[in-house]
Amino acid sequence: MQSPETPAGKVPPQHAPLEQFPVVDGQLQVGGQPLSRLADRVGRTPFYAYGRHQLTARVQALRAALPAGIELHYAMKANPMPVLVAHMAGLVDGIDVASGGELQVALDAGADPREISFAGPGKSEPELRQALAAGILINIESFREVDLLARLSEGTGYAARVAVRVNPDFELKSSGMKMGGGPKQFGVDAEQVPQLLQLIAAAGLGFEGFHLFAGSQNLKPDAIIEAQQKSFELALRLAESAPAPVRVLNLGGGFGIPYFPGEQRLDLAPIAANLAALQARAAQEMPGARLVIELGRYLVGEAGVYVCRVVDRKVSRGQVYLVTDGGLHHHLAASGNFGQVIRKNYPVAIGNRMGGEPEPGVSVVGPLCTPLDLLGERMALPHAEPGDLVVVFQSGAYGVSASPQNFLSHPPAAEVLV
Amino acid sequence: MQSPETPAGKVPPQHAPLEQFPVVDGQLQVGGQPLSRLADRVGRTPFYAYGRHQLTARVQALRAALPAGIELHYAMKANPMPVLVAHMAGLVDGIDVASGGELQVALDAGADPREISFAGPGKSEPELRQALAAGILINIESFREVDLLARLSEGTGYAARVAVRVNPDFELKSSGMKMGGGPKQFGVDAEQVPQLLQLIAAAGLGFEGFHLFAGSQNLKPDAIIEAQQKSFELALRLAESAPAPVRVLNLGGGFGIPYFPGEQRLDLAPIAANLAALQARAAQEMPGARLVIELGRYLVGEAGVYVCRVVDRKVSRGQVYLVTDGGLHHHLAASGNFGQVIRKNYPVAIGNRMGGEPEPGVSVVGPLCTPLDLLGERMALPHAEPGDLVVVFQSGAYGVSASPQNFLSHPPAAEVLV
Repeated sequence: MQSPETPAGKVPPQHAPLEQFPVVDGQLQVGGQPLSRLADRVGRTPFYAYGRHQLTARVQALRAALPAGIELHYAMKANPMPVLVAHMAGLVDGIDVASGGELQVALDAGADPREISFAGPGKSEPELRQALAAGILINIESFREVDLLARLSEGTGYAARVAVRVNPDFELKSSGMKMGGGPKQFGVDAEQVPQLLQLIAAAGLGFEGFHLFAGSQNLKPDAIIEAQQKSFELALRLAESAPAPVRVLNLGGGFGIPYFPGEQRLDLAPIAANLAALQARAAQEMPGARLVIELGRYLVGEAGVYVCRVVDRKVSRGQVYLVTDGGLHHHLAASGNFGQVIRKNYPVAIGNRMGGEPEPGVSVVGPLCTPLDLLGERMALPHAEPGDLVVVFQSGAYGVSASPQNFLSHPPAAEVLV
Repeated sequence: MQSPETPAGKVPPQHAPLEQFPVVDGQLQVGGQPLSRLADRVGRTPFYAYGRHQLTARVQALRAALPAGIELHYAMKANPMPVLVAHMAGLVDGIDVASGGELQVALDAGADPREISFAGPGKSEPELRQALAAGILINIESFREVDLLARLSEGTGYAARVAVRVNPDFELKSSGMKMGGGPKQFGVDAEQVPQLLQLIAAAGLGFEGFHLFAGSQNLKPDAIIEAQQKSFELALRLAESAPAPVRVLNLGGGFGIPYFPGEQRLDLAPIAANLAALQARAAQEMPGARLVIELGRYLVGEAGVYVCRVVDRKVSRGQVYLVTDGGLHHHLAASGNFGQVIRKNYPVAIGNRMGGEPEPGVSVVGPLCTPLDLLGERMALPHAEPGDLVVVFQSGAYGVSASPQNFLSHPPAAEVLV
């Protein structure tokens, strides 16, 4: 593996090895069958396929790596496919939802309402009413939500279970997206939390703990450790003003997965060691508090592939274009148009020609009339012809639900859990 | 209006004045009524509203500015709302579609199939069959499409009407998106077109003309003029190899609208003068050819607004956040995540407090748990409170259909034609 600072003449940075889906006789195996057969079984392309085995193995590996007793939550915004959420609900300790719509899916999926938590700025009154009726934990993000919950709880008679989402006074370094530190729309500024806690007590809302979320998609263990430590310290300080003991401390997530050339898998060992130390401190300094790690992308991202079919092979002024039936309308992130500043290639393969001799400089595009519709730019890929299957790896999170599916009125992508 | 290079201490660049929607008593008037009343009539927020009057006025103004006889096509990818397409079909000379789904909408809208054309790389076999059955003009984008159309036409007995989409040997300068020049997935490289034309003749497809589209969202008349001139010259050269006289020459579009501070409205006068000169030449050098300009965004972009409601007003570390019920899930482009390299603010207003004393540094965000969900960053806006209506102007094109509506499972945006 090369570093991104490869000197001229050396091999450019490569994608991290992807071994979650085996290859047999040149065919990627997804859901235990050759990709070509799976495509026939789905009946159409493009589609997303998520592997149950890969999802389960990921959670198991994470549990094995982290200290016993650290609770794992699935942030379903990463992938809200109902049967996938149901699968995950059987594996993790709780589900985190970000809207009333997601709450509905989580409940349908059989998640225990006691282990569902709801975060998000601008929660609507109907959403808060839903949350109260379901009996889930509501992460309060503003003074308005305290007033509104007090009124709704009194009006309905439903007890309010609340935690405080804190906008910390530090940032998660090296994070794909910063979600705390400085002014933010998320949570309540740490320095305002003592006042908020007084209001929560006065309103008779049931206080259960704190939620801190400093950022996401981080591949640097040191940055994650620092954020978790600072979050813990901050929660300890804030707990002094709390109307009840902290029962749950959500330390956020932020665990990244490798998408782009030169990126490496996150090393969990130092994170686990730090969590063990925090756990030991919590037992003394915050007795009775459960420590929760909330992860979306890390749990499901590597378990999914996006599959589309080559429709045309064009050579324009010496450059090969594989024109496919899939594109940014199904997979905006792979096109580089979802939060990325500089477009980079996701890992892409020809799923029915794995291991074939690569030809250089191949671009994979979609059927849309826009140059943004680019799934792979000048990659080294085995020779592919119409009918072949293009696979975009690392597509289990923020795929179809985070894409403008109606753009140009092409058919939607199918989704299968295999 | 200030240039983007405003010296320190001077007024920063401003948005171009937006006068398409009047203001009465501090209320923006949309569809002839105060925005607050329209919001009540729609029954929910967020919504997109498109003004019939503004759409009609835009086409009339453009026709008045351009030489008589220049045909106007509406590229419905910009806004595929069915009743809007029906409205546009009554105003323009043709509809350009980019998929089988769009074709269906155009036909439902009552567009004359003789004046519908279909462009897009990777057209599927079912789409080409649909197009043949409808009797529309198909812009051929690859050698594969010639073979496929020949086979389908023979199999079905439906005559094929075709034009050739050319990937020109020049680029549209200063364009928001380049769609021609160099290697591209769009069209057939100019140097390959003579060979393609031979195959079209041999296959018995009915040749009608050329389609050239160099780029989009251009605010520089000189660049558009240069592209149109070069396109015309190229079409003249290619026509020498054509199996039949050119009956339609689609010179593309590329007319931009002002979105960001410092951008000015496109000056049509020099473009019109150039088109008149090309028309005169066409009468001599390409007799019988109709000249077509294909526009999407330019026709509908300024006629639409996106409207959402303030749910919460938060002050975090001194910065004001208006948290709304709308966001990037409805309006990806306004969040800066659709093709923009550097995020800039769309024009935003408080629609029920127009002309109010602005407070500086106000950010408008949505309800999503991501810092990408930003509709306006540190803008000067009148003081707003929960219940007030935030308006994002210039939202008639590439709005809801180009946004990841399912992201985080919030309710969809309504759309109204008023």
